[in-house]
Amino acid sequence: MGDKPNDVEPENNAATSNGEAGVGGGATVDKGVDFAQYFCTYAFLYHQKEMLSDRVRMDAYYNAIFQNKHHFQGKTVLDVGTGSGILAIWSAQAGARKVYAVEATKMTEHARTLVAANNLQDVVEVIEGSMEEVTLPEKVDVIISEWMGYFLLRESMFDSVICARDRWLKPTGVISSLARVIYGLISGDDDIRYPSHARMWMAPIRSGLGDKKINDYEGAMDDWYSFVKETKTVYGVDMSVLTKPFSEEQKKYYLQAKNAIKFMQTSMWSNLHPQQVIGTAAAVKEIDCSTDTVDDILKVRSTILSSITGGCTRLCGFGGWFDVHFRGSKEDPAQKEIELTTAPSIDNGTHWGQQVFLFYPPISVSEGDNLNVSFSMNRSKENHRLMDIELSGEIKQSSGEALPSFRNRFYVE
Amino acid sequence: MGDKPNDVEPENNAATSNGEAGVGGGATVDKGVDFAQYFCTYAFLYHQKEMLSDRVRMDAYYNAIFQNKHHFQGKTVLDVGTGSGILAIWSAQAGARKVYAVEATKMTEHARTLVAANNLQDVVEVIEGSMEEVTLPEKVDVIISEWMGYFLLRESMFDSVICARDRWLKPTGVISSLARVIYGLISGDDDIRYPSHARMWMAPIRSGLGDKKINDYEGAMDDWYSFVKETKTVYGVDMSVLTKPFSEEQKKYYLQAKNAIKFMQTSMWSNLHPQQVIGTAAAVKEIDCSTDTVDDILKVRSTILSSITGGCTRLCGFGGWFDVHFRGSKEDPAQKEIELTTAPSIDNGTHWGQQVFLFYPPISVSEGDNLNVSFSMNRSKENHRLMDIELSGEIKQSSGEALPSFRNRFYVE
Repeated sequence: MGDKPNDVEPENNAATSNGEAGVGGGATVDKGVDFAQYFCTYAFLYHQKEMLSDRVRMDAYYNAIFQNKHHFQGKTVLDVGTGSGILAIWSAQAGARKVYAVEATKMTEHARTLVAANNLQDVVEVIEGSMEEVTLPEKVDVIISEWMGYFLLRESMFDSVICARDRWLKPTGVISSLARVIYGLISGDDDIRYPSHARMWMAPIRSGLGDKKINDYEGAMDDWYSFVKETKTVYGVDMSVLTKPFSEEQKKYYLQAKNAIKFMQTSMWSNLHPQQVIGTAAAVKEIDCSTDTVDDILKVRSTILSSITGGCTRLCGFGGWFDVHFRGSKEDPAQKEIELTTAPSIDNGTHWGQQVFLFYPPISVSEGDNLNVSFSMNRSKENHRLMDIELSGEIKQSSGEALPSFRNRFYVE
Repeated sequence: MGDKPNDVEPENNAATSNGEAGVGGGATVDKGVDFAQYFCTYAFLYHQKEMLSDRVRMDAYYNAIFQNKHHFQGKTVLDVGTGSGILAIWSAQAGARKVYAVEATKMTEHARTLVAANNLQDVVEVIEGSMEEVTLPEKVDVIISEWMGYFLLRESMFDSVICARDRWLKPTGVISSLARVIYGLISGDDDIRYPSHARMWMAPIRSGLGDKKINDYEGAMDDWYSFVKETKTVYGVDMSVLTKPFSEEQKKYYLQAKNAIKFMQTSMWSNLHPQQVIGTAAAVKEIDCSTDTVDDILKVRSTILSSITGGCTRLCGFGGWFDVHFRGSKEDPAQKEIELTTAPSIDNGTHWGQQVFLFYPPISVSEGDNLNVSFSMNRSKENHRLMDIELSGEIKQSSGEALPSFRNRFYVE
């Protein structure tokens, strides 16, 4: 004996009684469980600092606000998920008349302290509660929020922004839901204009991550074979019959197989070098923030058409990222248009990085080979804030010959 | 946004409805929660392999069985918490007539496979269930178990061995509850003799672990100060007001402070070099396995008297370990007496290692200084399988002068 129970991974499938989180799609999760699993993370200053230290993120929001002050001056603003309160504080500094800063976690205490330390307590009102449940004293002119998760939609927080928009934005109000994409103007219920767009991208990549994981797995198996030999020799017990279940357990661990039978892997965070992208990138989803509802983002279906551009190389899988634009609207364009991209970059990496979806084994490809891949994304059946992704397709070589087709399932957790 | 909910530590405090695990002391935990938190770990072959690769542990049990075959030949044996089944298999190989191998986790499936692969299916019967709930077809002559957790009593599994003894051992049966200490002979309800003893040891130590953790903490704070400066300069927001809560959060993280206000730290696993032990070791608990009940191990109170032996050095805290002996009984002594110790060792380290209880800051001490420390251990109020420890005391220098007294609380989790 002598093993720590805390080695055990937290499970995401508990769901019991009263209160369900999430608007739709995927398994709705008990509110308390959702708080413990999801919101809780944001209650740590360390995590807030990580986001506040992301210069690409910070610059995009800072410039979007201060280079477009006319959207804030004298306005009422709602910040959805204010965290430490930074966007609320900037909105106030840019001239907002009143800012409601809504946050579900105890981070509200720090946000209030920060607001007061920056002498904005008369403008910024920090409200603790979930966006779906709080009541504001008035409707607002502007909604601001940084809601983007890994690969844009992880966390499903955009649902809360949509909820805020539908409940609390004045019919004629300006929405500048700052994030990767939202910045807009509403001039009527039937004429909600989100002039900006969010896009999700996928591109074929090469990566050493898979090799490392296969090496780790093979090392674990080498170790197992020595163990079996020694246990037989020294202690007289034949353990070889457990080789197969041990191998399956280790595959799950090292190769991120979520389910050994279906071989569903979890995707991984990576900070890709641009040269690891070996083919053209394809947009798999474009979100029009002026019109999109939760239904529009529940399921994403797309076809990835991509050509290999990197000479003879190995297709190790796909990389996924997103960008958002703050463009204002046709009638009220941004004075300065801002883009926030999380694409592979040498100097401008973000804490979002990219999600990588690896194939085992890699596939040999050459310049000019064409990929035709069906992309399908749903909310996870286990947790509405996580996602299941399927990539199935084929590769036609430049010679015209087709490589064997593939079908891989991933879990963005 | 963009943080993983799985970063969040699993909590140990959930407790709800039907079925409670644990006999007494500390918070009893819901059976389902107990299974998820505790037993679940043992359902991984990787963890079983780790224990099966511990040569010190394996040799002690192997020798205790095969050098004392007369305790097994023709006997009925009960293995409490059989795991992969190794002790049950050895018992059968040593000549047992029948072995009942009880295990609470799905590891039973692998144990059954292993038993069959070693042609012992007619002797070893693997039974899935908790020791407290299973029914055996007969009473047994011998109980065997490896029940020891970190610092002996973590996991509180000895409770289950006591339960097995009281319910399933023949009044006149032989008990050889192999672990760190149990091996015995029972010759009547009122004359249960466990000839072996388990002991818990504590000794003053020096350790670089605390320095490393303080350095990490100080590095995190340096990083924070740069962040505060940059956020003010570049983004016009003063974050300095959050320095204190950030510092507290980081102290909790790096210095293992379980509770920042009470400053209760968690103890740490370590594989101490014998030279890191800077004073005489003191036994803080001796368990007489022939007579002890759960009540005898619920609370441990002792006084640690120790003299510094290592010249001028730093008292960084205490190291705790245990040993167990398989001595048989007076009437039926072991043919070969076996000891299993987890004391600091260069060549014979175990997977249990030692638990270290660190002081911040360390205290300067010299050869001949005398420590007089009250040791108090209770089961945790949050989880009966974990423990709270308090060390309070004073140091009298060889000159006769007393250093300031100390009082530190720790959590063995």
